[in-house]
Amino acid sequence: MTLDQRIGANLPVRSGSDSHRLPIGSFEPELGGRLDEVSLAYETWGELDASGTNAVLVTHALTGDPRAAGGADESHKRGGWWEPVIGPGRPIDTDEYFVICSNVLGGCAGSTGPESPDPETGRPYGMRFPTVTIRDIVRAQKRLLDGLGIKKLAMVAGGSIGGQQALEWPIEFPDFVEKSLVVAATDALGPQGLGMSEIGRRAITADPNFQNGDYYGTGKTPDSGLSIARMAGMMTYQSAECQSERFGRNSATSGRSRMENPGGTFDVECYLQYQGNDLVGRFDANSYLYLLRAMDLYDAARGYSSLEEAFERIRAEMLFVGISSDWLFPARDVEATAEVAAKAGAKAKYVEMESINGHDAFLKDWDEFNAAISPFLERG
Amino acid sequence: MTLDQRIGANLPVRSGSDSHRLPIGSFEPELGGRLDEVSLAYETWGELDASGTNAVLVTHALTGDPRAAGGADESHKRGGWWEPVIGPGRPIDTDEYFVICSNVLGGCAGSTGPESPDPETGRPYGMRFPTVTIRDIVRAQKRLLDGLGIKKLAMVAGGSIGGQQALEWPIEFPDFVEKSLVVAATDALGPQGLGMSEIGRRAITADPNFQNGDYYGTGKTPDSGLSIARMAGMMTYQSAECQSERFGRNSATSGRSRMENPGGTFDVECYLQYQGNDLVGRFDANSYLYLLRAMDLYDAARGYSSLEEAFERIRAEMLFVGISSDWLFPARDVEATAEVAAKAGAKAKYVEMESINGHDAFLKDWDEFNAAISPFLERG
Repeated sequence: MTLDQRIGANLPVRSGSDSHRLPIGSFEPELGGRLDEVSLAYETWGELDASGTNAVLVTHALTGDPRAAGGADESHKRGGWWEPVIGPGRPIDTDEYFVICSNVLGGCAGSTGPESPDPETGRPYGMRFPTVTIRDIVRAQKRLLDGLGIKKLAMVAGGSIGGQQALEWPIEFPDFVEKSLVVAATDALGPQGLGMSEIGRRAITADPNFQNGDYYGTGKTPDSGLSIARMAGMMTYQSAECQSERFGRNSATSGRSRMENPGGTFDVECYLQYQGNDLVGRFDANSYLYLLRAMDLYDAARGYSSLEEAFERIRAEMLFVGISSDWLFPARDVEATAEVAAKAGAKAKYVEMESINGHDAFLKDWDEFNAAISPFLERG
Repeated sequence: MTLDQRIGANLPVRSGSDSHRLPIGSFEPELGGRLDEVSLAYETWGELDASGTNAVLVTHALTGDPRAAGGADESHKRGGWWEPVIGPGRPIDTDEYFVICSNVLGGCAGSTGPESPDPETGRPYGMRFPTVTIRDIVRAQKRLLDGLGIKKLAMVAGGSIGGQQALEWPIEFPDFVEKSLVVAATDALGPQGLGMSEIGRRAITADPNFQNGDYYGTGKTPDSGLSIARMAGMMTYQSAECQSERFGRNSATSGRSRMENPGGTFDVECYLQYQGNDLVGRFDANSYLYLLRAMDLYDAARGYSSLEEAFERIRAEMLFVGISSDWLFPARDVEATAEVAAKAGAKAKYVEMESINGHDAFLKDWDEFNAAISPFLERG
């Protein structure tokens, strides 16, 4: 069976993406429920070698998609989200590696998620979609990799909720992963992050257009709720310092705000409105709720007697990258996670990226990020 | 005219408060508009001396009310919000001072605000209420104090938006104020605070029950919007450290959450839900919007060529109190404000309260707070 035969039909997916899609069969999420037919959307760069061991899995962030690499086009006007990191001669070198990025289970960029039709009823799952966890997401990815003939991951790499996946991979499949790059993520989100998620969740579910998740085809989508949730998210992705530098108390450029505020609109308000609205056009509110919950619920120790016991399973070489100004997954917490991993016997190192750009720095500060990860990526 | 004659009728006010209410005439807010009949609700403790100069004005926080002191009763089950600070023999000693606390202009605890009837139409103002600023709030308070026969403030004291008022007082009325105690406030809120306010504002105005502010008498109030706004506020009042200590990733006690979340409800989620819902019962959503905006818009430099020029007006002795873990008005920003005041010639000192309790510590950590302010309160 050639690779092309193994790849599913190119079904239409959100935002005109040209991802491939591979059926991975039925799936039973760890917290219950069952999905009868699951497909994952993915994109790849480079060539899988004959041994099937030169693959790198790149895992996307909350609202990300499989377009990790590649230049700008109609559907991705700013190019792949890790474009400066992945490519020929880049830190994740596609001359050497077969790079794959899949939309997560529960997502809305081509993989089976809440907006997919339930094969039993033909109607979109909506909130009947089962709760999925980071472990479920990783297990589904493993099936995809198996389907693509990948025998071993040379590396798994991702940031934020993608970092949680990169951490879960060598715990769940210790013999399958050689290296794991965990960026801006810890073994479990703290209460501040949980609290901000809750604000977003309440905003979406309180939107009258939400209709308990059954808004598909009604012509009404919970746009304002999703927009507010995104605004809450954006606050956790930025640092006080970068907001001070970028926005301060400046007034919004005239005419740019969607909603003028009494006494004049501040730049930061206009920015949040823009970001909120921008997500509405490209993301499904139900998917947002499910993936947010996966992030909230992730606890690497779940199912083990302790975090140490979970980490004792790791055979992969690990690099944890903390971002000095990260509010969502504070650098000191990333470092603490790395320390537990090292204590549990994992070959785990920690490196801190100095940046004022907060959680999002791994999607922005390319020079600093590439400098932080490059030593780890050199083949031994 | 005796004091009692000057005091207006005891009109019914929110939550069964037994505040007095004093008409202060018509009022023109600095950003435009006009209010024809304004009253302020207030409570007092202690006696005004013959010279009218032993008065202390205490200014409340965003969702506070005039009940600053006094023990618990039906309407205030936990007693006055600064009860351990104000009373006979307490730091603000009512054996010595005549203490007054008034509900702010725009508030909903008895003072003229958006839910008051517009005398022209007889209908509640709603969003037709003019934008009010901290300076307006202070100017209205001055009229109240004049009406009560107060000749000079021995001190003005408050935290958060109350601290903004305590800072504005000696700028706006330099000859009227002997001491100013500014707690957990700066000359202007930073972009993170502005951003969190914007999330709350959008949540309220997106609530279909908001009806552009005209929800009075409709039987529908924007409860879920106000609740989400309060949740966003609570996030800014607490520190990562206190949330970690208090909530961590603990599960909510069974049955306590109003809204169960997939995979189980975290304690911090339950807490935020509770706080959000609690405010709904005791606060008007329009007032919340107006007071939030007053906090956002406050800029002590407004109307002056610089902050220094504004601060050069100050004759009062100032104490700025920062809270080490404050996220909304970070201690370093409070200190920086104090430094500018001192540089501008004000007798300004700064003291920092060590607390993990975040912005709210001035309403919680009584021993630390009283220790921080007591030296400043001793009569020279």
